[in-house]
Amino acid sequence: MDRRRLLKLTSVALASAVALPTVVQAQKSKSPGLWGVWDSAFARARFVSLSHVLAPNTPVWSGFPTTTKFQQGTGRLDEKSPYAAFTYEKTGLETTAYAFATDQFGTQLDPPAHWHQCFPAIDELPATLALRKLAVISIADKVAADPNYHLTAADIAAWERAHGMIPAGSVVMVRSDWSKRWPDPELAKLTEFPGVSLAALQFLHLQRHILFHGHEPLDTDSTPTLEGEAWLMHHGYAQAEGVDNLDAVPAKGCLINIGYPKFRGGLGGYARYVAICPPGTRGERIPARERPLPTASPLHFDAALGYRVR
Amino acid sequence: MDRRRLLKLTSVALASAVALPTVVQAQKSKSPGLWGVWDSAFARARFVSLSHVLAPNTPVWSGFPTTTKFQQGTGRLDEKSPYAAFTYEKTGLETTAYAFATDQFGTQLDPPAHWHQCFPAIDELPATLALRKLAVISIADKVAADPNYHLTAADIAAWERAHGMIPAGSVVMVRSDWSKRWPDPELAKLTEFPGVSLAALQFLHLQRHILFHGHEPLDTDSTPTLEGEAWLMHHGYAQAEGVDNLDAVPAKGCLINIGYPKFRGGLGGYARYVAICPPGTRGERIPARERPLPTASPLHFDAALGYRVR
Repeated sequence: MDRRRLLKLTSVALASAVALPTVVQAQKSKSPGLWGVWDSAFARARFVSLSHVLAPNTPVWSGFPTTTKFQQGTGRLDEKSPYAAFTYEKTGLETTAYAFATDQFGTQLDPPAHWHQCFPAIDELPATLALRKLAVISIADKVAADPNYHLTAADIAAWERAHGMIPAGSVVMVRSDWSKRWPDPELAKLTEFPGVSLAALQFLHLQRHILFHGHEPLDTDSTPTLEGEAWLMHHGYAQAEGVDNLDAVPAKGCLINIGYPKFRGGLGGYARYVAICPPGTRGERIPARERPLPTASPLHFDAALGYRVR
Repeated sequence: MDRRRLLKLTSVALASAVALPTVVQAQKSKSPGLWGVWDSAFARARFVSLSHVLAPNTPVWSGFPTTTKFQQGTGRLDEKSPYAAFTYEKTGLETTAYAFATDQFGTQLDPPAHWHQCFPAIDELPATLALRKLAVISIADKVAADPNYHLTAADIAAWERAHGMIPAGSVVMVRSDWSKRWPDPELAKLTEFPGVSLAALQFLHLQRHILFHGHEPLDTDSTPTLEGEAWLMHHGYAQAEGVDNLDAVPAKGCLINIGYPKFRGGLGGYARYVAICPPGTRGERIPARERPLPTASPLHFDAALGYRVR
């Protein structure tokens, strides 16, 4: 397509867009404090996204309506409300309107106010929930034999014999490889799926004093009363759900970066988790030529799919 | 209210909810690698949220419809679509449905696909965009004298004379104190506001090779063509908008935690940024008794305001 059609709003010349700046190696500064920590510990780290990409076809818990919709442009997503066609073709820049059927969607951070209105909502969680130690306990082998296997306190004890005590204030992710079928819509209908037992949750919180735990499925356990999530939320603990790519993360020694929008009084968080791991592990590294970002074939909104594709 | 009304869905007893576990001091482990880095550099750090809390009354750019709506329960937010009353009273847990008029809302991360479909969308940004050095350049004094002041290359040179060279790969936030009036709805109507000049953006990207810059207002500059944002987006650079609390962050020496949901083909990001600063600076610290989270008066959905309050 003619890229100059993008320029309805501005007079910026695109001719220089392909002229990349010269490459600069990451500075090996000896700056003190946290900048020095970054140079020595993070400049050559490996980064693994633990969050799914979300779209209207993302699996959701079977009890919720599946009415989530993305729309090209700007405005309310019903027929009566104002709409503004902000598109590449018409305005030189493009935007998206979203209707989310639920805040329990994709890779999440559940604040305890999801089940108990006297505990913090998503916007009330402290800023200290940002960067933590990450431990990954795998039950993938047991789940391969029993799809309804739930992490036990004995599994945690076995992990600690191999790796040491789970640190206070850490995030503990439970790897089950359930996410490997994602985004298969059948996933949301399963009544048997890997879980985390109430006893395991109580051990992690009451004995190890972790920050929160996370799991790959959309529910904490497969009990009819959701007993694990109910206990967490009624006792002031958060949790992560719908976590991805745990098979790429070592059992110990990585950190986790935690991020989510702060919607007022929100009861679920569309979260992005990134594991930060030492050199030599799997994951993306910071490239020498980091910016500008690379080009690809043009993105366009596919009305049938309901989201943009290339 | 009778808290037992929450228990329609589960048989969990709430009686033990007030029994707090014993306090455990943060472990002073001597673990090697990144866990050891966390113990020495982050356990006693200070954390400052740089993101606004978002609600339907959040100021948005004057060209966009103001139809953003939060709704108690689950389902599409128009009259024809299915709705499920997930509320504390009816189901023992509560959820929220959202209709966002635009992805250009609140504290944002703009990927360059916002203006150019050949550059990455929000879900295509690399996982390496997670934790970076943070530099804060203040133009607050100049903005106090001229509300339309824009950061210049000379301002950056003055910052570097005081603090050293801006590191490659860092995030540079421009403090103007514009956000101190937030969420005053008049903010979105201002035609004069603090900006970042095109020359300053080009210096930061082409000479200093930063990761991205950020600013407090909802636009990069007040030129009629939005020349700064147009140049960034057409050349493969991201940016942060609607940033808060920069007055609490030192000019150099902090890190920034970056997080946002990964919506497929998304052209804007509802972002949470957290500055991580050394002990002795302003900001929250990790408390000794970190979990469970504290209780407060009950949260409830205020239909007139359109969001939950306590």
